[in-house]
Amino acid sequence: MDTLTLHNPLDMHLHLREGDLLQAILPFSARYFSAAVVMPNLAIPITNTALALEYKARIEQAGFYFAPLIALYLTPDLTRRELEKAREAGFFLLKLYPHNATTNSTHGVQNILSPQMLRILSVAQDLGFILCVHAESLGFVMQREVEFHPILNALVAYLPYLTIIIEHLSDRRSIPLLEQYENLYATLTLHHIALSLDDVLGNHLNPHLFCKPLLKTPQDQQALLELALSAHPKVAFGSDSAPHLIGNKHTCACSAGIFSAPILLEALTTLFDRHHALDKLPAFISHNAQRIYHLDPHKLPAKRITLAKKPHTPPKSCYNDQLQIPFFFDLAWSVIDP
Amino acid sequence: MDTLTLHNPLDMHLHLREGDLLQAILPFSARYFSAAVVMPNLAIPITNTALALEYKARIEQAGFYFAPLIALYLTPDLTRRELEKAREAGFFLLKLYPHNATTNSTHGVQNILSPQMLRILSVAQDLGFILCVHAESLGFVMQREVEFHPILNALVAYLPYLTIIIEHLSDRRSIPLLEQYENLYATLTLHHIALSLDDVLGNHLNPHLFCKPLLKTPQDQQALLELALSAHPKVAFGSDSAPHLIGNKHTCACSAGIFSAPILLEALTTLFDRHHALDKLPAFISHNAQRIYHLDPHKLPAKRITLAKKPHTPPKSCYNDQLQIPFFFDLAWSVIDP
Repeated sequence: MDTLTLHNPLDMHLHLREGDLLQAILPFSARYFSAAVVMPNLAIPITNTALALEYKARIEQAGFYFAPLIALYLTPDLTRRELEKAREAGFFLLKLYPHNATTNSTHGVQNILSPQMLRILSVAQDLGFILCVHAESLGFVMQREVEFHPILNALVAYLPYLTIIIEHLSDRRSIPLLEQYENLYATLTLHHIALSLDDVLGNHLNPHLFCKPLLKTPQDQQALLELALSAHPKVAFGSDSAPHLIGNKHTCACSAGIFSAPILLEALTTLFDRHHALDKLPAFISHNAQRIYHLDPHKLPAKRITLAKKPHTPPKSCYNDQLQIPFFFDLAWSVIDP
Repeated sequence: MDTLTLHNPLDMHLHLREGDLLQAILPFSARYFSAAVVMPNLAIPITNTALALEYKARIEQAGFYFAPLIALYLTPDLTRRELEKAREAGFFLLKLYPHNATTNSTHGVQNILSPQMLRILSVAQDLGFILCVHAESLGFVMQREVEFHPILNALVAYLPYLTIIIEHLSDRRSIPLLEQYENLYATLTLHHIALSLDDVLGNHLNPHLFCKPLLKTPQDQQALLELALSAHPKVAFGSDSAPHLIGNKHTCACSAGIFSAPILLEALTTLFDRHHALDKLPAFISHNAQRIYHLDPHKLPAKRITLAKKPHTPPKSCYNDQLQIPFFFDLAWSVIDP
């Protein structure tokens, strides 16, 4: 039987929410991943060190052998003192949400290139933070990432020593930026490399595959898939798994987000195997992120996850049937030794 | 008070369904429109004269002063004898559905340019039929109408005397075809001239605005709106109003179609007024169709509908709350004398 062993899988973009929901979904990620970058867009966003410490503690209380790497929600109110405090407490990630660009982004930044924001980001650069960016304008939904390029260009030029990550890169026209700027990187989700807009609404409309940034053309999907399959050194895996209750999905105002956490390893292995690229999966799912984010492998919770080539049927739902687990494609690999 | 009187409004593309649902939605169209082209994609499609006569009788039984113009569902099984029978019974419209292109199109045509189909269409041309086309390929959802152009080009060239209608034209790249081919025309919906893909999923996802052909870019919307506002001689209004029960909308496999019938006149008048084009509305909503489809105005149920500039609040739903009436924009005009 074909098997594959992955060491220290890392998910560099994850939504864990809070309360009951956190408890319900955390195991899907914490059982197989060594660490994950945990996004701070909670109802009360994680905008300072105290909130981040408290959130980290809540995640750690669940008792998993798993490191939550909390990103701080960037706002114009962040001070040098607060950033120093965050670094001392072990936090090193900032998340930039443009105002109203996605779920829980009403506290996001209205004027990213204002003198005040550039001052804060300059301090962040000095302190060795990494900036994770939701890189979308408020324009036409298929053009939002491209329309954000001028802001990325300005940030990269103004902050040449700040590591900047285009989160969930979705548009093939963003790829040349990675080649062009040494300090610019990207995360790629499972859904953006596996699906296109046709999967959302080419036949019936599937609200469980509706997300931001929107899934784009088959050409975009193909280009992003090739980035992943080659484990391009400027990209790391980040699932952007985001649970939304069925009550917020099957409605006339459905919320954006794909809950992929329950199938990530099985789906990625199936996809890489299908394209004869299993040898690149360790780099895509762990080594690249270690290098880009300067993670010391000896300080990560050590994990060996073995998968075998046998069909896996995930549950259709969880959280008392309030969360639907979306179907991407048949899973040809199963975890046999978590 | 500003008022506007419309004579004999015509809806050249309408879905009336059957049974209870037909009874519930027919009044929305029949109260204000003189006539409507009624689409034949029922569960058992209207593929011959006997079915069309029976469907027409069911609609007429409701007793409205309203002419249902039934389009026959084009299949490879149609014969010259059947087409002659249809003409004798007063039917003059054929609807071409590419196989699996939209709701209830499993009986649609697989090979449109086959010798058999071209023979049938040639007979249809001789008998003076008009061909209404769902002009979409099975390709990427944003490219389907453009990918269908080669088939339109071939049909127009092979059948130069057949009037061919691009139904619900959705892509600005189709507009030059109308200028290029004398026998090619189009219908325009309210939703394609008033909305874009951003309204479907730019913020939240609104399943009630999900339709086929998919709403396109703001540039497409603007170009189609200009066609309508100028009452371009090659276009007629056809709502493509299509009811889908909430149970088929708020689901993980939401069906395509916008139920605009309850707001059509109020919304079109609001839109044309907003763009200072009220003088063009009579041509867009009646005169152009009379000319393109050779409708004798003396044989249409005569109607005068007067609207006044005062806000109108339609019901949020109908059919025992099983049908939601979608919101496009605030309606600044109301029908005062139906």
